[in-house]
Amino acid sequence: MRVSVFRKAHFNAAHRLHNPNWSDERNERVFGKCNNPNYHGHNYNLIVKVTGEVDPDTGYVMDMKVLSDIIKEHVTDVLDHKNLSLDIEAFADLNPSAENIAIVIWNILRKQLDNKYDLSVTLYETERNYVEYPA
Amino acid sequence: MRVSVFRKAHFNAAHRLHNPNWSDERNERVFGKCNNPNYHGHNYNLIVKVTGEVDPDTGYVMDMKVLSDIIKEHVTDVLDHKNLSLDIEAFADLNPSAENIAIVIWNILRKQLDNKYDLSVTLYETERNYVEYPA
Amino acid sequence: MRVSVFRKAHFNAAHRLHNPNWSDERNERVFGKCNNPNYHGHNYNLIVKVTGEVDPDTGYVMDMKVLSDIIKEHVTDVLDHKNLSLDIEAFADLNPSAENIAIVIWNILRKQLDNKYDLSVTLYETERNYVEYPA
Amino acid sequence: MRVSVFRKAHFNAAHRLHNPNWSDERNERVFGKCNNPNYHGHNYNLIVKVTGEVDPDTGYVMDMKVLSDIIKEHVTDVLDHKNLSLDIEAFADLNPSAENIAIVIWNILRKQLDNKYDLSVTLYETERNYVEYPA
Amino acid sequence: MRVSVFRKAHFNAAHRLHNPNWSDERNERVFGKCNNPNYHGHNYNLIVKVTGEVDPDTGYVMDMKVLSDIIKEHVTDVLDHKNLSLDIEAFADLNPSAENIAIVIWNILRKQLDNKYDLSVTLYETERNYVEYPA
Amino acid sequence: MRVSVFRKAHFNAAHRLHNPNWSDERNERVFGKCNNPNYHGHNYNLIVKVTGEVDPDTGYVMDMKVLSDIIKEHVTDVLDHKNLSLDIEAFADLNPSAENIAIVIWNILRKQLDNKYDLSVTLYETERNYVEYPA
Repeated sequence: MRVSVFRKAHFNAAHRLHNPNWSDERNERVFGKCNNPNYHGHNYNLIVKVTGEVDPDTGYVMDMKVLSDIIKEHVTDVLDHKNLSLDIEAFADLNPSAENIAIVIWNILRKQLDNKYDLSVTLYETERNYVEYPA
Repeated sequence: MRVSVFRKAHFNAAHRLHNPNWSDERNERVFGKCNNPNYHGHNYNLIVKVTGEVDPDTGYVMDMKVLSDIIKEHVTDVLDHKNLSLDIEAFADLNPSAENIAIVIWNILRKQLDNKYDLSVTLYETERNYVEYPA
Repeated sequence: MRVSVFRKAHFNAAHRLHNPNWSDERNERVFGKCNNPNYHGHNYNLIVKVTGEVDPDTGYVMDMKVLSDIIKEHVTDVLDHKNLSLDIEAFADLNPSAENIAIVIWNILRKQLDNKYDLSVTLYETERNYVEYPA
Repeated sequence: MRVSVFRKAHFNAAHRLHNPNWSDERNERVFGKCNNPNYHGHNYNLIVKVTGEVDPDTGYVMDMKVLSDIIKEHVTDVLDHKNLSLDIEAFADLNPSAENIAIVIWNILRKQLDNKYDLSVTLYETERNYVEYPA
Repeated sequence: MRVSVFRKAHFNAAHRLHNPNWSDERNERVFGKCNNPNYHGHNYNLIVKVTGEVDPDTGYVMDMKVLSDIIKEHVTDVLDHKNLSLDIEAFADLNPSAENIAIVIWNILRKQLDNKYDLSVTLYETERNYVEYPA
Repeated sequence: MRVSVFRKAHFNAAHRLHNPNWSDERNERVFGKCNNPNYHGHNYNLIVKVTGEVDPDTGYVMDMKVLSDIIKEHVTDVLDHKNLSLDIEAFADLNPSAENIAIVIWNILRKQLDNKYDLSVTLYETERNYVEYPA
């Protein structure tokens, strides 16, 4: 009786894709307009997937209100209306690509959830580009 | 040449989350506003996923019209504009959480489909909360 | 420099369409499955449109956080996870059709907004059925 | 035989809401997290509405490919992956609120379209907040 | 107490944009890939808007089931899975642009609705291109 | 550190479902209105999923601009505004069902991508019917 439950959330942030070990030319060539030194931004949509057994007393895998509060406290309140490149320590030495943001969010949430649950996150950078971790 | 085919459907229903073995206080604490004794409701969106081999004569895994008719006859015509807690026998002794509704729908559809097909169902209780069974 | 600003919100509720002055037969004939005596329900999506001059100091017609808080306090916290037919006094003698719910919400919000603003509300009962007031 | 035609486009940008004539405290109080000095960002969705007579030779109000190219050249290629507050001259002395961005876009497009057409623009800052100009 | 009610429907069809009074070269230049002599196709989404007074006995502007049945019988059952250019008489001498399809649908529906109602139709040819008639 | 990245694209095309080895009666019975000899059409939405390791220098599984260009050059520019049954050689002897179109697109893209990547494609024929290959 294993079921996956999904909760959607969102945050709005600025970022810049940049590798400090590369020349400006190489950064511009690889990252294109995403390398704008003045930053650009996105409305990120996040889907958190938690898989586990259904509790026969509640009919829940987990209380979605609890999951929603965890996402809010540990992820969206932290990242919303921020510049990921400047304001968030996790990206001090890590390029804030959608892939890396998803991995950072997964690591944050993994610590908040009981080990009996499996976890994956899907992060939409735009309606046309999104990533899922783990694959 | 195994392909998954997906068909979306929808139904609108009322329900109440409640465990009759618990006190009112505990029900209220665990289920919160979902425990309203007068019920509340949702537009449920359902995605049925059927996986199988592509038939070389038709190019179909299965005829989507047939799948659509099965979903309509056995699921959405049964559940639409109903109070799941009061009108549907499957929930007489089962809390109509999204997880349990998905399992009930899966069990209904499993009996209608040839064993050569794999089946899973995704049920959206809202745009922000949904479940998938089996995980 | 008049601009319209729009804010989306949502609530989940049960209701029943019923005219107490009519026979059961007539209610059933006119309202069909929406007349289920055990209620059914919807995820209602609400769009509130406010039209006014842009304030040159802020660039705002009005602060969307203020508008969002007004909608939450006076509309969605009041209606969410309720049975409109049983729990909401405005529908004690008024059929909770999408049209009437929209008019009730408009009347609530009109009192909360400065008269310099024009107001209209759009209410989605489902993705396929929605209403706008005033027309 | 007047018909309105609509074309959707999108761009991703950073911005900061700030009034340079105000103290930091007042900016923070009025604009809240939108005042983050390091900027934040959005995926902006734009809908351009053009109204006119249907040309009997083509069945078109105007060629949507032409409209799409005008939007791309004069709006989305200019604003995409930019910091509106730093990179775009129109916002050098104008707060880049959704209202003001919509007015700026309308002014740009108005110059590119024949006077026989009526024009309005709708700008989504998020899925939940959007504006329309003129009202 | 005038309210607008909206009903969404859809149909899938092939078409070709072509003016028989023009040379092949001019058709190709004006209509581009939409002039493919072998046709191309779309999933058309239709929104029908009906405006009128709310009936105090029902709370309805009009019964959405009745409106839905009218749309199905007179529009979507007629146009669905058809080649608009070849199968539909209304387009024998009329280019099936989105603008003209919307006008044809409006003319069909106008005859089915009581004159006390105002009517407009919005037709999505794609998610990015749509038209509204009357403007 | 394997992550899946997804890119959405779209194309509009006509097609007809038909098995040339069958009688007209059997084709009509099996394929219904999809067998219309004059064709019908769809807005196809395509999601391409590529799975691989995150490159520590870029934070990318692969550059989404490169993936987007591959999809455009090899898939959507080839299929857009075409009649799949008449214009596309891959369907000369293959019924253009959603299942078969997805397999054809997968085969095209597989040749364009490094073997270190896993690939799957999801193809929406309508908002309600879609397929995924491989399952």
